[in-house]
Amino acid sequence: MTNICIFGAGRIGQLHAANVAANPRSHLVSVVDINEEAATSLAGQYGARVETDADTALDRPDVDAVIIGAPTTLHVDLILASARRGKPVFCEKPIDLDIARVNDCLAEMQTLGVPFGVGFNRRFDPTHRKMKGAIDAGDIGDIEIIVITSRDPAPPPVDYVKSSGGYFRDSTIHDLDLARWLLSEPVVEVSAFGSNLVDPAIADAGDFDTAVTSLKSASGKLCQINNSRRAVYGFDQRVEVFGSKGMLQTSNQLESGLLRWSESGTGALDRLKLFFLERYEDSFRTELDEFLDAIEQGRQPSVSGEDGRQALILADAAQQSAETGRAIRVNDNRQEEAG
Amino acid sequence: MTNICIFGAGRIGQLHAANVAANPRSHLVSVVDINEEAATSLAGQYGARVETDADTALDRPDVDAVIIGAPTTLHVDLILASARRGKPVFCEKPIDLDIARVNDCLAEMQTLGVPFGVGFNRRFDPTHRKMKGAIDAGDIGDIEIIVITSRDPAPPPVDYVKSSGGYFRDSTIHDLDLARWLLSEPVVEVSAFGSNLVDPAIADAGDFDTAVTSLKSASGKLCQINNSRRAVYGFDQRVEVFGSKGMLQTSNQLESGLLRWSESGTGALDRLKLFFLERYEDSFRTELDEFLDAIEQGRQPSVSGEDGRQALILADAAQQSAETGRAIRVNDNRQEEAG
Amino acid sequence: MTNICIFGAGRIGQLHAANVAANPRSHLVSVVDINEEAATSLAGQYGARVETDADTALDRPDVDAVIIGAPTTLHVDLILASARRGKPVFCEKPIDLDIARVNDCLAEMQTLGVPFGVGFNRRFDPTHRKMKGAIDAGDIGDIEIIVITSRDPAPPPVDYVKSSGGYFRDSTIHDLDLARWLLSEPVVEVSAFGSNLVDPAIADAGDFDTAVTSLKSASGKLCQINNSRRAVYGFDQRVEVFGSKGMLQTSNQLESGLLRWSESGTGALDRLKLFFLERYEDSFRTELDEFLDAIEQGRQPSVSGEDGRQALILADAAQQSAETGRAIRVNDNRQEEAG
Amino acid sequence: MTNICIFGAGRIGQLHAANVAANPRSHLVSVVDINEEAATSLAGQYGARVETDADTALDRPDVDAVIIGAPTTLHVDLILASARRGKPVFCEKPIDLDIARVNDCLAEMQTLGVPFGVGFNRRFDPTHRKMKGAIDAGDIGDIEIIVITSRDPAPPPVDYVKSSGGYFRDSTIHDLDLARWLLSEPVVEVSAFGSNLVDPAIADAGDFDTAVTSLKSASGKLCQINNSRRAVYGFDQRVEVFGSKGMLQTSNQLESGLLRWSESGTGALDRLKLFFLERYEDSFRTELDEFLDAIEQGRQPSVSGEDGRQALILADAAQQSAETGRAIRVNDNRQEEAG
Repeated sequence: MTNICIFGAGRIGQLHAANVAANPRSHLVSVVDINEEAATSLAGQYGARVETDADTALDRPDVDAVIIGAPTTLHVDLILASARRGKPVFCEKPIDLDIARVNDCLAEMQTLGVPFGVGFNRRFDPTHRKMKGAIDAGDIGDIEIIVITSRDPAPPPVDYVKSSGGYFRDSTIHDLDLARWLLSEPVVEVSAFGSNLVDPAIADAGDFDTAVTSLKSASGKLCQINNSRRAVYGFDQRVEVFGSKGMLQTSNQLESGLLRWSESGTGALDRLKLFFLERYEDSFRTELDEFLDAIEQGRQPSVSGEDGRQALILADAAQQSAETGRAIRVNDNRQEEAG
Repeated sequence: MTNICIFGAGRIGQLHAANVAANPRSHLVSVVDINEEAATSLAGQYGARVETDADTALDRPDVDAVIIGAPTTLHVDLILASARRGKPVFCEKPIDLDIARVNDCLAEMQTLGVPFGVGFNRRFDPTHRKMKGAIDAGDIGDIEIIVITSRDPAPPPVDYVKSSGGYFRDSTIHDLDLARWLLSEPVVEVSAFGSNLVDPAIADAGDFDTAVTSLKSASGKLCQINNSRRAVYGFDQRVEVFGSKGMLQTSNQLESGLLRWSESGTGALDRLKLFFLERYEDSFRTELDEFLDAIEQGRQPSVSGEDGRQALILADAAQQSAETGRAIRVNDNRQEEAG
Repeated sequence: MTNICIFGAGRIGQLHAANVAANPRSHLVSVVDINEEAATSLAGQYGARVETDADTALDRPDVDAVIIGAPTTLHVDLILASARRGKPVFCEKPIDLDIARVNDCLAEMQTLGVPFGVGFNRRFDPTHRKMKGAIDAGDIGDIEIIVITSRDPAPPPVDYVKSSGGYFRDSTIHDLDLARWLLSEPVVEVSAFGSNLVDPAIADAGDFDTAVTSLKSASGKLCQINNSRRAVYGFDQRVEVFGSKGMLQTSNQLESGLLRWSESGTGALDRLKLFFLERYEDSFRTELDEFLDAIEQGRQPSVSGEDGRQALILADAAQQSAETGRAIRVNDNRQEEAG
Repeated sequence: MTNICIFGAGRIGQLHAANVAANPRSHLVSVVDINEEAATSLAGQYGARVETDADTALDRPDVDAVIIGAPTTLHVDLILASARRGKPVFCEKPIDLDIARVNDCLAEMQTLGVPFGVGFNRRFDPTHRKMKGAIDAGDIGDIEIIVITSRDPAPPPVDYVKSSGGYFRDSTIHDLDLARWLLSEPVVEVSAFGSNLVDPAIADAGDFDTAVTSLKSASGKLCQINNSRRAVYGFDQRVEVFGSKGMLQTSNQLESGLLRWSESGTGALDRLKLFFLERYEDSFRTELDEFLDAIEQGRQPSVSGEDGRQALILADAAQQSAETGRAIRVNDNRQEEAG
């Protein structure tokens, strides 16, 4: 049984808390949030302790491991504070919006050596995992083209946008991580266009709401990602991997399996599941399971700090490309204009 | 909190036990099975009491309600024993294989008046419910034709077949109940053909393994059901309701949302979910919720003893039709050859 | 080059005329219809001769073969008149609505020995043929259940209904022929229900507009057919063949390959092709080709007079079953109540 | 009746010849090819005249219009030779591989004023047209993202590749034209990556065989195109247009409507239609019809020389981007590096 302390009592903290409480291998021991009311409300649901001070919370000997769902600006401090106390830590993406801070954090984390996982939950989606397994089994031969469609049902509040690090670092980063994971080789070039087509307030905040990104891997495999902050038909999540021997696609998840045939059209599927909490519900549970596995086995989780860092490098490159109109060459932790 | 005693520690008893234990409104208080080892094993998982004697188990004052997953031959006695003690009871289908025993049971149950639910779980499947809601909302106008496809992945052991009451009473009965529920009006005529195409041992046991059944309702709506004990591609569960203004279909549930494109064909969906425990997983949870609702509200569950009786009458009629080659007219609790 | 005389200048005659004119192996030499205006109009389009007298038309030495699209009551006389002159003849289904007349006709045709084809065009649909080929190649093992859905977009005029021979002989007969062809073995039992749900005028004319039919073959294979005179979403034509090693389905044909995703649902296909002239367009061309092949090769067409007779026997049995509520046993050209 | 002279007796010339011969409004009067054997063979099928000299062929007074399916290097000379004689001309894409020559050609064509169409046949595909109609009708609101997938079943011979002008000018150009047509506004920025993943001989010839291209329009609408010279599952042609009020997709065309359910997966569609001659069969017929309309109405065809020029500008930009790693800004007939 792993006793877990959760930082952050917001939407993602609530999700992790529910999963920790429901998992037979973990126990929610405390919830930390400077918003004491939120912390109390969440902790109360599961009989957990309420904390408002991070150090106090982490010093408690009954805390075996830490899950961080706090605001991004707090991530690095909390990661290191946990790890310095020898406590395995799982942190939501991104580690930080500043690659220099991420580099420093990872350098120290490597010395500390405690299990450290980063929240790219989509890798744990059952359909994505089945796709990855089929690719690794050689079902489609060598990967040649990946097409990722990722569109939110509705734009977030502008306040969220302002502190998000920008569309590429906030949202596309999930798709960049998926692409890296599926490609199984380094991305060496990134090109992107960003636009404002959804919400003028997002443009006013200096961010994009519609974007396309292209990647080239070391051996020339190509990837296209398209993103929108608004799809009226729902949360659209599709991955297509085309290879020398065939193609694999993941399909969207639906509210139900009902099909409608009417005068206006035939075989209409039900609406898509609402948003990521519904669509990726299973992935968060499996992600937790894998974190618990890593703790029990004294190993690093499969989605590592380095994965978090690499995805941020690609997101930074996409942002830079969208701003400059140049493809950006990526080389380990550096990036430069291509051409 | 409703304290529940479960009769039967087999596959269906285990399913109900898990759901009772996981539901925040119910508590598994005891498991009753003459197979003490099975009862001990199941009860142990949830810290429940083991009982081997029905009367003793039912007399306990901490038992608020009863779920019966015992062999069919015990159903009526256990239903009545529970109800005579004033304890709400939920029984797996069928109530009994003998319509006369069912009639007697229901007559007494009506006097006793305790909440009494019957396990036609498919009515609680989210997709079926969404279909029913759309029909009731008038989306497809008046129902004209229903087509139900229900095929098991593999035939059961012959020993199971021998005590099952026959294919129509054991398996088609689920589809007959679905048809009744969707039609919202009485079925007045039943016609069926049965065949042996899957397993000669089932023929030797005097039962069918492949069957088609047709129903006509009071106002002339028509329904076709087709059943097989074996579908190599998996558990095939589809319902199609055709009406004056459109059509609704439920689609199968898949192991995942992965699609494959290869030299031999394009867009192949993943395999179907294994069998009813996987396909109808949600339905059993919702079914329990509705039973708990009924108890709390002091009302009858939505799937009543009368539903259990009516479905058996239709299954009896289908069996008789398959044996005699005549359509069977059904009139309340009597049935006679049509024509 | 085969010179063809077409009887009947109505909808089906027009279709055959266009195909004969477009086929490089055939030439439309004359059109015969007592409605001289209709004949003149049709013949004029293709530079063909207009005839109003059957004997005169058939006596012409430049007529190599005959296609009959005239009213059903004239079929037998025209078939025999053509064949007695040694001219290969293709006749739309049904040969006649009276099985005794069909029997007499076929007896004489057997003596005459000229190529004689019957218009069950659906056997020539490319998708149906691909399905048949896959079945014959063993792709799905032994057939166990066939489900045929055949629903017209809108009911015909009541005058058409009155002379149609009834729903089973007019429309279901196509599905019965498909079932016979796919089964590759005799049907031995037929059971049907008919209803009036679409148009009260059809009921007043003594006919059904909604029907379900069940068939059992000699070895116990089962088939379900469901028919409606009206599907608001279009001409619904689906065949499903379930076997010991898998399942095959034919899908509907659509007006185009456009899919729509909207707030109300996702992935809606375009509307179905309008009706049989559009849906089965290819089949009529291939049917003609096969008739020309048979003439050139001096053999019988693949869909024979006997096929026409057997389908009528099954349609008669379905009609009788729907009227009497009994399954009808079919044995070559006789039929009797089962049970 | 329009008498047509066709230049080129190869694959595309044969296709146009068949369509001209079958169209009731056009007549194939002559076939011109320096390969006299090829010209004779093709002309012979339709009773047309064989010509080997372009000027002689064009001088004939019975030639009303010209279709050019000759090698690309001859296009401009033949276009102008036809137009100078006042004869409407339809030319396969591209007009030329050199934008300067295209500019000069169009300048003179504008003076000459005869109807001049360019062969972007995909615009005439019924499904694409239905999509365009739905967009223009406002079904999906404002376009935001277009995703075009276009993959050939197998790579062409290297000799073809060598004279093709490169992958972007030879193949992507079709998708670029589709994008322009659907967007209904100018493309202002182009970015592309090219790779060699299919055939090393294509790399040796200095060309790509796998490519992704991104476009940005004047108002910020984004488009992604992905191309491969080989898809083992067949000719993959899909267009997805995502807008503020919904999404439209075109689906692939299949060899038949047969679906297969087996132990390895469910609902597999049939193979895709072989290649463009099969997939876009209808489009070539409609394209001819529209050319005949333009001639009869004395107007320009809907796909103009300017469309041919603009698509080439975009293809040039994509080629330049793939070579330089920079997004290319496009401004009417000029292009420059962005950023």
